[in-house]
Amino acid sequence: MVGNSLKRRGLMFVLSSPSGAGKTTIAHRLLQEDMEIAMSISVTTRPIRPGESDGLDYRFTDRAEFAAMIERDEFLEWAEVFGHFYGTPKAQIRAGLKEGQDFLFDIDWQGTQQLYQRMETDVVRVFLLPPSIEALEERLRHRGTDSDEVIHSRMDRARFEISHWDGYDYVVINDDIEACFEQVHGILCAERLRRARQTGLVDFTRDLMR
Amino acid sequence: MVGNSLKRRGLMFVLSSPSGAGKTTIAHRLLQEDMEIAMSISVTTRPIRPGESDGLDYRFTDRAEFAAMIERDEFLEWAEVFGHFYGTPKAQIRAGLKEGQDFLFDIDWQGTQQLYQRMETDVVRVFLLPPSIEALEERLRHRGTDSDEVIHSRMDRARFEISHWDGYDYVVINDDIEACFEQVHGILCAERLRRARQTGLVDFTRDLMR
Repeated sequence: MVGNSLKRRGLMFVLSSPSGAGKTTIAHRLLQEDMEIAMSISVTTRPIRPGESDGLDYRFTDRAEFAAMIERDEFLEWAEVFGHFYGTPKAQIRAGLKEGQDFLFDIDWQGTQQLYQRMETDVVRVFLLPPSIEALEERLRHRGTDSDEVIHSRMDRARFEISHWDGYDYVVINDDIEACFEQVHGILCAERLRRARQTGLVDFTRDLMR
Repeated sequence: MVGNSLKRRGLMFVLSSPSGAGKTTIAHRLLQEDMEIAMSISVTTRPIRPGESDGLDYRFTDRAEFAAMIERDEFLEWAEVFGHFYGTPKAQIRAGLKEGQDFLFDIDWQGTQQLYQRMETDVVRVFLLPPSIEALEERLRHRGTDSDEVIHSRMDRARFEISHWDGYDYVVINDDIEACFEQVHGILCAERLRRARQTGLVDFTRDLMR
Protein backbone atom coordinates (compact mmCIF):
# COMPACT_ATOMS: atom_id res chain seq x y z
CA MET A 1 0.00 0.00 0.00
CA VAL A 2 1.42 3.36 -1.01
CA GLY A 3 0.62 6.32 1.20
CA ASN A 4 -0.20 9.71 -0.17
CA SER A 5 1.92 12.62 0.87
CA LEU A 6 -0.59 14.79 2.75
CA LYS A 7 0.20 15.86 6.27
CA ARG A 8 -1.51 13.58 8.76
CA ARG A 9 -1.86 13.06 12.49
CA GLY A 10 -0.22 9.89 13.83
CA LEU A 11 -2.15 7.16 15.62
CA MET A 12 -1.66 4.90 18.63
CA PHE A 13 -1.80 1.30 17.49
CA VAL A 14 -2.57 -1.08 20.34
CA LEU A 15 -1.86 -4.77 19.88
CA SER A 16 -3.12 -7.06 22.64
CA SER A 17 -3.53 -10.82 22.90
CA PRO A 18 -3.34 -13.68 25.33
CA SER A 19 0.29 -14.84 25.59
CA GLY A 20 0.99 -17.53 23.04
CA ALA A 21 -1.07 -15.89 20.27
CA GLY A 22 1.93 -14.51 18.36
CA LYS A 23 1.71 -10.85 19.30
CA THR A 24 5.48 -10.39 19.74
CA THR A 25 6.24 -11.73 16.26
CA ILE A 26 3.63 -9.48 14.64
CA ALA A 27 4.84 -6.43 16.60
CA HIS A 28 8.46 -7.02 15.54
CA ARG A 29 7.52 -7.31 11.87
CA LEU A 30 5.45 -4.13 12.01
CA LEU A 31 8.41 -2.23 13.45
CA GLN A 32 10.80 -3.73 10.88
CA GLU A 33 8.69 -3.35 7.75
CA ASP A 34 6.79 -0.13 8.36
CA MET A 35 8.88 3.00 8.64
CA GLU A 36 6.14 5.24 10.05
CA ILE A 37 5.49 3.32 13.26
CA ALA A 38 7.75 3.14 16.33
CA MET A 39 7.48 1.58 19.76
CA SER A 40 6.54 4.07 22.42
CA ILE A 41 9.34 4.28 25.01
CA SER A 42 8.05 3.58 28.51
CA VAL A 43 9.30 4.98 31.78
CA THR A 44 10.06 2.21 34.30
CA THR A 45 11.33 1.71 37.83
CA ARG A 46 12.74 -1.73 37.13
CA PRO A 47 16.57 -1.98 37.18
CA ILE A 48 18.38 -1.63 33.86
CA ARG A 49 19.60 -4.97 32.44
CA PRO A 50 22.88 -5.67 30.66
CA GLY A 51 22.62 -4.62 27.02
CA GLU A 52 19.79 -2.12 27.61
CA SER A 53 20.19 1.63 27.04
CA ASP A 54 18.46 4.32 29.03
CA GLY A 55 16.26 6.31 26.65
CA LEU A 56 16.29 3.62 23.96
CA ASP A 57 14.71 0.53 25.54
CA TYR A 58 13.15 2.35 28.47
CA ARG A 59 13.58 5.56 30.34
CA PHE A 60 14.82 4.25 33.71
CA THR A 61 13.88 6.12 36.84
CA ASP A 62 13.32 5.57 40.58
CA ARG A 63 10.09 5.14 42.51
CA ALA A 64 10.08 8.65 43.91
CA GLU A 65 10.34 10.23 40.45
CA PHE A 66 7.73 7.80 39.03
CA ALA A 67 5.35 8.73 41.86
CA ALA A 68 5.98 12.42 41.16
CA MET A 69 5.20 11.86 37.47
CA ILE A 70 1.88 10.21 38.42
CA GLU A 71 1.19 13.16 40.71
CA ARG A 72 1.89 15.61 37.88
CA ASP A 73 -0.41 13.60 35.57
CA GLU A 74 2.39 12.96 33.09
CA PHE A 75 1.30 9.45 32.04
CA LEU A 76 -1.22 8.36 29.44
CA GLU A 77 -1.33 4.98 31.20
CA TRP A 78 0.71 3.28 33.86
CA ALA A 79 0.71 -0.07 35.64
CA GLU A 80 2.54 -2.06 38.31
CA VAL A 81 3.80 -5.45 37.11
CA PHE A 82 5.61 -7.81 39.52
CA GLY A 83 6.53 -4.94 41.81
CA HIS A 84 7.90 -2.59 39.14
CA PHE A 85 6.16 0.41 37.59
CA TYR A 86 5.81 1.05 33.87
CA GLY A 87 4.21 4.11 32.26
CA THR A 88 3.71 5.85 28.92
CA PRO A 89 4.75 9.52 29.11
CA LYS A 90 2.27 11.94 27.55
CA ALA A 91 4.64 14.58 26.23
CA GLN A 92 6.61 12.29 23.88
CA ILE A 93 3.45 10.76 22.38
CA ARG A 94 1.61 14.04 21.92
CA ALA A 95 4.55 15.65 20.13
CA GLY A 96 5.00 12.57 17.89
CA LEU A 97 1.32 12.29 16.91
CA LYS A 98 1.33 15.91 15.80
CA GLU A 99 4.26 15.15 13.46
CA GLY A 100 2.53 12.12 11.91
CA GLN A 101 4.47 9.53 13.92
CA ASP A 102 2.53 6.34 14.74
CA PHE A 103 3.19 4.49 18.00
CA LEU A 104 2.88 0.79 18.68
CA PHE A 105 1.66 -0.32 22.11
CA ASP A 106 2.12 -3.84 23.39
CA ILE A 107 -0.17 -3.53 26.42
CA ASP A 108 -2.97 -5.48 28.10
CA TRP A 109 -6.65 -4.54 28.24
CA GLN A 110 -6.27 -2.40 31.34
CA GLY A 111 -3.58 -0.24 29.75
CA THR A 112 -5.69 -0.15 26.59
CA GLN A 113 -8.67 1.16 28.55
CA GLN A 114 -6.57 3.90 30.15
CA LEU A 115 -5.19 4.99 26.76
CA TYR A 116 -8.62 4.94 25.17
CA GLN A 117 -10.17 7.04 27.92
CA ARG A 118 -7.56 9.74 27.40
CA MET A 119 -6.91 9.68 23.65
CA GLU A 120 -10.02 8.04 22.19
CA THR A 121 -9.84 9.25 18.59
CA ASP A 122 -6.09 8.58 18.26
CA VAL A 123 -6.28 4.97 19.48
CA VAL A 124 -6.79 1.91 17.25
CA ARG A 125 -7.23 -1.28 19.26
CA VAL A 126 -6.40 -4.66 17.72
CA PHE A 127 -6.82 -7.98 19.51
CA LEU A 128 -5.17 -11.20 18.30
CA LEU A 129 -6.73 -14.58 19.02
CA PRO A 130 -5.30 -18.09 18.60
CA PRO A 131 -7.12 -20.32 16.08
CA SER A 132 -8.11 -22.82 18.80
CA ILE A 133 -7.61 -23.56 22.47
CA GLU A 134 -5.48 -26.59 21.52
CA ALA A 135 -3.14 -24.42 19.43
CA LEU A 136 -2.77 -22.00 22.34
CA GLU A 137 -2.01 -24.79 24.84
CA GLU A 138 0.59 -26.23 22.50
CA ARG A 139 2.33 -22.85 22.22
CA LEU A 140 2.26 -22.42 26.01
CA ARG A 141 3.76 -25.89 26.51
CA HIS A 142 6.81 -25.07 24.36
CA ARG A 143 9.15 -25.34 27.34
CA GLY A 144 8.85 -29.11 27.76
CA THR A 145 9.83 -29.03 31.42
CA ASP A 146 6.83 -27.14 32.80
CA SER A 147 4.55 -28.99 35.18
CA ASP A 148 0.87 -29.44 34.41
CA GLU A 149 0.17 -27.03 37.22
CA VAL A 150 2.19 -24.25 35.56
CA ILE A 151 0.51 -24.93 32.21
CA HIS A 152 -2.85 -24.91 33.94
CA SER A 153 -2.23 -21.51 35.49
CA ARG A 154 -0.99 -20.10 32.15
CA MET A 155 -4.15 -21.32 30.45
CA ASP A 156 -6.28 -19.68 33.14
CA ARG A 157 -4.45 -16.42 32.58
CA ALA A 158 -4.94 -16.73 28.80
CA ARG A 159 -8.69 -17.33 29.25
CA PHE A 160 -8.91 -14.22 31.39
CA GLU A 161 -7.13 -12.18 28.72
CA ILE A 162 -9.37 -13.59 25.97
CA SER A 163 -12.44 -12.56 27.96
CA HIS A 164 -11.68 -8.90 27.11
CA TRP A 165 -11.87 -9.40 23.33
CA ASP A 166 -14.92 -7.17 23.05
CA GLY A 167 -13.06 -4.07 24.23
CA TYR A 168 -11.20 -3.85 20.90
CA ASP A 169 -11.95 -2.24 17.53
CA TYR A 170 -10.58 -5.11 15.43
CA VAL A 171 -10.08 -8.82 16.05
CA VAL A 172 -7.67 -10.92 13.98
CA ILE A 173 -7.31 -14.68 14.31
CA ASN A 174 -3.68 -15.77 14.05
CA ASP A 175 -3.99 -19.06 12.19
CA ASP A 176 -1.15 -18.30 9.78
CA ILE A 177 1.51 -15.76 10.75
CA GLU A 178 1.83 -14.37 7.20
CA ALA A 179 -1.90 -13.83 6.73
CA CYS A 180 -2.18 -12.42 10.24
CA PHE A 181 0.62 -9.91 9.61
CA GLU A 182 -1.00 -8.82 6.32
CA GLN A 183 -4.30 -8.25 8.10
CA VAL A 184 -2.82 -6.31 11.01
CA HIS A 185 -0.68 -4.18 8.70
CA GLY A 186 -3.72 -3.64 6.46
CA ILE A 187 -5.67 -2.28 9.43
CA LEU A 188 -2.83 0.14 10.21
CA CYS A 189 -2.64 1.37 6.58
CA ALA A 190 -6.42 1.79 6.33
CA GLU A 191 -6.63 3.72 9.60
CA ARG A 192 -4.05 6.18 8.26
CA LEU A 193 -6.50 7.00 5.46
CA ARG A 194 -9.24 8.12 7.83
CA ARG A 195 -10.41 11.55 6.85
CA ALA A 196 -10.10 12.82 10.41
CA ARG A 197 -6.38 11.88 10.62
CA GLN A 198 -5.43 13.50 7.31
CA THR A 199 -4.98 17.00 8.64
CA GLY A 200 -3.56 18.14 5.28
CA LEU A 201 -6.96 17.65 3.60
CA VAL A 202 -8.23 21.03 4.72
CA ASP A 203 -5.64 22.89 2.63
CA PHE A 204 -5.63 20.29 -0.13
CA THR A 205 -9.39 20.46 -0.78
CA ARG A 206 -9.36 24.24 -0.49
CA ASP A 207 -6.78 24.35 -3.30
CA LEU A 208 -8.86 21.90 -5.38
CA MET A 209 -11.92 24.13 -5.10
CA ARG A 210 -10.11 27.38 -5.90
CA MET B 1 -5.27 -10.30 2.40
CA VAL B 2 -6.73 -13.63 3.53
CA GLY B 3 -9.99 -13.52 5.46
CA ASN B 4 -10.67 -15.77 8.39
CA SER B 5 -13.68 -18.01 8.24
CA LEU B 6 -15.83 -16.70 11.10
CA LYS B 7 -19.38 -15.70 10.39
CA ARG B 8 -19.62 -11.95 9.86
CA ARG B 9 -22.15 -9.27 9.04
CA GLY B 10 -21.75 -7.63 5.62
CA LEU B 11 -21.13 -3.93 5.15
CA MET B 12 -22.27 -1.17 2.81
CA PHE B 13 -19.26 0.27 1.03
CA VAL B 14 -19.93 3.73 -0.36
CA LEU B 15 -17.59 5.13 -3.00
CA SER B 16 -18.13 8.78 -3.94
CA SER B 17 -16.06 11.28 -5.87
CA PRO B 18 -16.34 14.22 -8.23
CA SER B 19 -16.69 12.91 -11.78
CA GLY B 20 -13.29 12.51 -13.37
CA ALA B 21 -11.60 11.16 -10.22
CA GLY B 22 -11.62 7.52 -11.37
CA LYS B 23 -14.43 6.13 -9.23
CA THR B 24 -15.90 3.94 -11.98
CA THR B 25 -12.58 2.20 -12.65
CA ILE B 26 -12.03 1.51 -8.95
CA ALA B 27 -15.60 0.23 -8.52
CA HIS B 28 -15.24 -2.17 -11.47
CA ARG B 29 -12.00 -3.61 -10.14
CA LEU B 30 -13.49 -4.12 -6.68
CA LEU B 31 -16.40 -6.06 -8.17
CA GLN B 32 -14.07 -8.11 -10.37
CA GLU B 33 -11.36 -8.94 -7.86
CA ASP B 34 -13.26 -9.29 -4.61
CA MET B 35 -15.79 -12.11 -4.44
CA GLU B 36 -17.56 -10.94 -1.30
CA ILE B 37 -18.80 -7.60 -2.59
CA ALA B 38 -21.61 -7.00 -5.10
CA MET B 39 -23.32 -3.95 -6.55
CA SER B 40 -26.62 -3.23 -4.88
CA ILE B 41 -29.41 -3.47 -7.48
CA SER B 42 -31.44 -0.27 -7.60
CA VAL B 43 -35.09 0.14 -8.44
CA THR B 44 -35.63 2.71 -11.20
CA THR B 45 -38.38 4.35 -13.22
CA ARG B 46 -36.15 5.03 -16.20
CA PRO B 47 -36.92 2.96 -19.33
CA ILE B 48 -34.95 -0.23 -19.85
CA ARG B 49 -32.18 0.11 -22.47
CA PRO B 50 -31.14 -2.46 -25.07
CA GLY B 51 -28.84 -5.03 -23.48
CA GLU B 52 -30.10 -4.45 -19.93
CA SER B 53 -31.90 -7.13 -17.92
CA ASP B 54 -34.64 -6.46 -15.40
CA GLY B 55 -33.44 -7.68 -11.98
CA LEU B 56 -29.77 -7.76 -13.05
CA ASP B 57 -28.87 -4.18 -13.99
CA TYR B 58 -31.85 -2.57 -12.30
CA ARG B 59 -35.28 -3.51 -11.15
CA PHE B 60 -37.43 -1.53 -13.58
CA THR B 61 -40.74 -0.19 -12.39
CA ASP B 62 -43.20 2.64 -13.08
CA ARG B 63 -43.74 5.89 -11.23
CA ALA B 64 -46.88 4.76 -9.43
CA GLU B 65 -45.16 1.69 -7.97
CA PHE B 66 -42.05 3.74 -7.09
CA ALA B 67 -44.23 6.26 -5.25
CA ALA B 68 -45.98 3.42 -3.43
CA MET B 69 -42.59 2.02 -2.36
CA ILE B 70 -41.60 5.43 -0.97
CA GLU B 71 -44.96 5.53 0.83
CA ARG B 72 -44.34 2.08 2.34
CA ASP B 73 -40.83 3.21 3.44
CA GLU B 74 -39.17 0.46 1.39
CA PHE B 75 -36.06 2.45 0.38
CA LEU B 76 -32.82 3.02 2.23
CA GLU B 77 -32.20 6.00 -0.03
CA TRP B 78 -33.74 7.34 -3.20
CA ALA B 79 -33.19 10.26 -5.56
CA GLU B 80 -34.53 11.86 -8.70
CA VAL B 81 -31.91 12.30 -11.44
CA PHE B 82 -32.82 13.98 -14.76
CA GLY B 83 -36.52 13.20 -14.25
CA HIS B 84 -36.11 9.52 -13.36
CA PHE B 85 -36.25 7.94 -9.93
CA TYR B 86 -33.64 5.60 -8.48
CA GLY B 87 -33.79 3.88 -5.09
CA THR B 88 -32.07 1.22 -2.97
CA PRO B 89 -34.60 -1.31 -1.64
CA LYS B 90 -34.22 -2.16 2.04
CA ALA B 91 -35.25 -5.80 2.00
CA GLN B 92 -32.55 -7.04 -0.37
CA ILE B 93 -29.76 -5.22 1.49
CA ARG B 94 -30.90 -6.26 4.96
CA ALA B 95 -31.10 -9.94 3.98
CA GLY B 96 -27.68 -9.79 2.28
CA LEU B 97 -25.90 -8.06 5.18
CA LYS B 98 -27.13 -10.76 7.54
CA GLU B 99 -25.53 -13.41 5.32
CA GLY B 100 -22.17 -11.62 5.19
CA GLN B 101 -22.69 -10.10 1.73
CA ASP B 102 -21.04 -6.71 1.19
CA PHE B 103 -22.65 -4.13 -1.09
CA LEU B 104 -20.96 -1.45 -3.17
CA PHE B 105 -22.72 1.91 -3.58
CA ASP B 106 -21.77 4.36 -6.28
CA ILE B 107 -23.79 7.32 -4.95
CA ASP B 108 -23.32 11.01 -4.26
CA TRP B 109 -23.12 12.72 -0.87
CA GLN B 110 -26.90 13.11 -0.53
CA GLY B 111 -27.51 9.39 -1.04
CA THR B 112 -24.61 8.71 1.33
CA GLN B 113 -26.23 10.86 4.01
CA GLN B 114 -29.56 9.04 3.65
CA LEU B 115 -27.85 5.64 3.92
CA TYR B 116 -25.80 6.72 6.90
CA GLN B 117 -28.80 8.07 8.77
CA ARG B 118 -30.58 4.73 8.45
CA MET B 119 -27.77 2.18 8.67
CA GLU B 120 -24.96 4.03 10.43
CA THR B 121 -22.89 1.12 11.77
CA ASP B 122 -23.10 -0.86 8.51
CA VAL B 123 -21.93 1.99 6.28
CA VAL B 124 -18.28 2.68 5.35
CA ARG B 125 -17.90 5.92 3.39
CA VAL B 126 -14.92 6.43 1.07
CA PHE B 127 -14.29 9.60 -0.93
CA LEU B 128 -11.87 9.74 -3.86
CA LEU B 129 -10.10 12.96 -4.77
CA PRO B 130 -8.06 13.87 -7.86
CA PRO B 131 -4.37 14.70 -7.23
CA SER B 132 -4.82 18.27 -8.50
CA ILE B 133 -7.37 20.57 -10.09
CA GLU B 134 -5.35 20.47 -13.35
CA ALA B 135 -5.52 16.65 -13.46
CA LEU B 136 -9.29 16.80 -12.94
CA GLU B 137 -9.78 19.37 -15.69
CA GLU B 138 -7.68 17.30 -18.07
CA ARG B 139 -9.85 14.24 -17.40
CA LEU B 140 -13.03 16.26 -17.88
CA ARG B 141 -11.73 17.63 -21.20
CA HIS B 142 -11.20 14.16 -22.64
CA ARG B 143 -13.90 14.71 -25.26
CA GLY B 144 -11.97 17.27 -27.29
CA THR B 145 -15.10 18.81 -28.80
CA ASP B 146 -16.62 20.29 -25.64
CA SER B 147 -16.87 24.05 -25.44
CA ASP B 148 -15.16 25.98 -22.66
CA GLU B 149 -18.61 26.69 -21.28
CA VAL B 150 -19.39 22.98 -20.90
CA ILE B 151 -16.01 22.36 -19.27
CA HIS B 152 -16.60 25.31 -16.99
CA SER B 153 -19.93 23.97 -15.80
CA ARG B 154 -18.44 20.49 -15.25
CA MET B 155 -15.68 22.01 -13.13
CA ASP B 156 -18.24 23.91 -11.07
CA ARG B 157 -20.13 20.69 -10.47
CA ALA B 158 -16.89 18.92 -9.48
CA ARG B 159 -16.02 21.68 -7.01
CA PHE B 160 -19.47 21.33 -5.46
CA GLU B 161 -18.98 17.57 -5.07
CA ILE B 162 -15.50 18.04 -3.58
CA SER B 163 -16.95 20.42 -0.99
CA HIS B 164 -18.59 17.42 0.74
CA TRP B 165 -15.29 15.58 1.38
CA ASP B 166 -15.67 15.94 5.14
CA GLY B 167 -18.81 13.79 5.27
CA TYR B 168 -16.77 10.64 4.64
CA ASP B 169 -14.90 8.19 6.87
CA TYR B 170 -11.92 7.76 4.55
CA VAL B 171 -10.36 9.92 1.85
CA VAL B 172 -8.08 8.49 -0.85
CA ILE B 173 -6.23 10.58 -3.41
CA ASN B 174 -6.22 8.94 -6.82
CA ASP B 175 -2.79 9.86 -8.11
CA ASP B 176 -2.00 6.36 -9.40
CA ILE B 177 -4.85 3.97 -10.18
CA GLU B 178 -2.99 0.91 -8.88
CA ALA B 179 -2.06 2.50 -5.54
CA CYS B 180 -5.55 3.92 -5.22
CA PHE B 181 -7.17 0.51 -5.79
CA GLU B 182 -4.86 -1.09 -3.21
CA GLN B 183 -5.81 1.54 -0.67
CA VAL B 184 -9.55 1.32 -1.29
CA HIS B 185 -9.47 -2.49 -1.22
CA GLY B 186 -7.33 -2.35 1.93
CA ILE B 187 -9.99 -0.22 3.63
CA LEU B 188 -12.67 -2.77 2.67
CA CYS B 189 -10.60 -5.70 4.01
CA ALA B 190 -9.76 -3.89 7.26
CA GLU B 191 -13.39 -2.93 7.87
CA ARG B 192 -14.36 -6.60 7.59
CA LEU B 193 -12.08 -7.30 10.57
CA ARG B 194 -13.96 -4.93 12.86
CA ARG B 195 -14.92 -6.74 16.01
CA ALA B 196 -18.50 -5.56 15.78
CA ARG B 197 -18.99 -7.05 12.29
CA GLN B 198 -17.55 -10.47 13.18
CA THR B 199 -20.73 -11.93 14.61
CA GLY B 200 -19.08 -15.37 14.88
CA LEU B 201 -16.70 -14.12 17.57
CA VAL B 202 -19.26 -14.61 20.33
CA ASP B 203 -19.30 -18.39 19.85
CA PHE B 204 -15.63 -18.57 18.88
CA THR B 205 -14.37 -16.85 22.04
CA ARG B 206 -16.81 -18.83 24.19
CA ASP B 207 -15.24 -22.04 22.84
CA LEU B 208 -11.72 -20.67 23.44
CA MET B 209 -12.53 -19.97 27.10
CA ARG B 210 -14.20 -23.31 27.80
